[in-house]
Amino acid sequence: MKRIAESTVRRLSIYLGFLEEIGAQGVLTTSSDDLAKLGGTTSAQVRKDLSFFGSFGKRGLGYSVPELSSRLREILGLGHEWRICIVGAGKIGAALARYAGFAERGFLITGVYDSDPSKIGKTSGGVTVKDIAHLERDIAARKYQIAILTVPAENAQHIADTIVRGGLRAILSFAPTQLTTPPDVTLRTVNMAMELEGLTFALTNKSTDG
Amino acid sequence: MKRIAESTVRRLSIYLGFLEEIGAQGVLTTSSDDLAKLGGTTSAQVRKDLSFFGSFGKRGLGYSVPELSSRLREILGLGHEWRICIVGAGKIGAALARYAGFAERGFLITGVYDSDPSKIGKTSGGVTVKDIAHLERDIAARKYQIAILTVPAENAQHIADTIVRGGLRAILSFAPTQLTTPPDVTLRTVNMAMELEGLTFALTNKSTDG
Repeated sequence: MKRIAESTVRRLSIYLGFLEEIGAQGVLTTSSDDLAKLGGTTSAQVRKDLSFFGSFGKRGLGYSVPELSSRLREILGLGHEWRICIVGAGKIGAALARYAGFAERGFLITGVYDSDPSKIGKTSGGVTVKDIAHLERDIAARKYQIAILTVPAENAQHIADTIVRGGLRAILSFAPTQLTTPPDVTLRTVNMAMELEGLTFALTNKSTDG
Repeated sequence: MKRIAESTVRRLSIYLGFLEEIGAQGVLTTSSDDLAKLGGTTSAQVRKDLSFFGSFGKRGLGYSVPELSSRLREILGLGHEWRICIVGAGKIGAALARYAGFAERGFLITGVYDSDPSKIGKTSGGVTVKDIAHLERDIAARKYQIAILTVPAENAQHIADTIVRGGLRAILSFAPTQLTTPPDVTLRTVNMAMELEGLTFALTNKSTDG
């Protein structure tokens, strides 16, 4: 398969979210126009995004909502369960561990780790917090497939290195720093300050224009 | 100013984070090569990103770290304080209200709102939770400039409409749904499930390839 851009994968997620919503309302067919509106894109882009993965829909008839949903779930790897560990048992870690939307999509939080002795052994979001000293060994033993990092910036690179050494190949980081990982590791970073800077940039340049 | 792509603004944030880090270590100059490595891009892209905002650096001498930091802070609107309200006093709302990195960048959480009578009047992340019924009126009265939405998907569009009606033009949403806002409103969405889907997509397609 050709390398697919991150922005394409994001749009596939948006399309799927929309399909599941209208599917739940009993809608059976939809169009690339409808999908385009949701994804903030054009119907040509929708057709191009989907064309990477084969042929969908019938000219003039649009897409079957159940068929396209099911195919997108498969493409996004959502057909089965994923074992996830959260590293960092702070508030964000606990909020994520408890987030019901994850289980619906097959994202199972099966371990939470921290280095703080006052947290180890307690529960966070319904999961008992384990000692981070066991993380590297646990990755294979407990078959984690994805790690979510919710640790301070200053510890994040060291912990990411540990995770990679343990054999994990997918990391979602909430640490407010830029991490470095080998090319075969997929890293996504959610940086709250960066998201806010996108807004202040827009507000600042609007007021300059006006 | 030309319309700047969201991806460019993200890279500016990454460059600034790096400049502040090396600036704190006493480094005085840097190159487009160094900035490119951090931003996962090329030095030509770095020069293009910066060229939108005037001329920086000297050929063969690179960029002055303090000067470029200061200019990027200005471009991103970080020279002053921003008044932010959080709507939804759950765990993520509380974690954000408490997040120290925000205040450092001038992001002041000056209000937290919820509709749950058991939360109103209590404190969340150090801020007293107010009744969401007052939100629309408070936006002008309390001079909020940005709203962070941490509410369930089913309430999010209704609350976004209220915020827009109240006059806010910048929303950061953590609600796991696609919101619709007028074109003069800047909306950023952080969707945790979507980030994880980016990882499961990569893991799924790796195992297909291998």
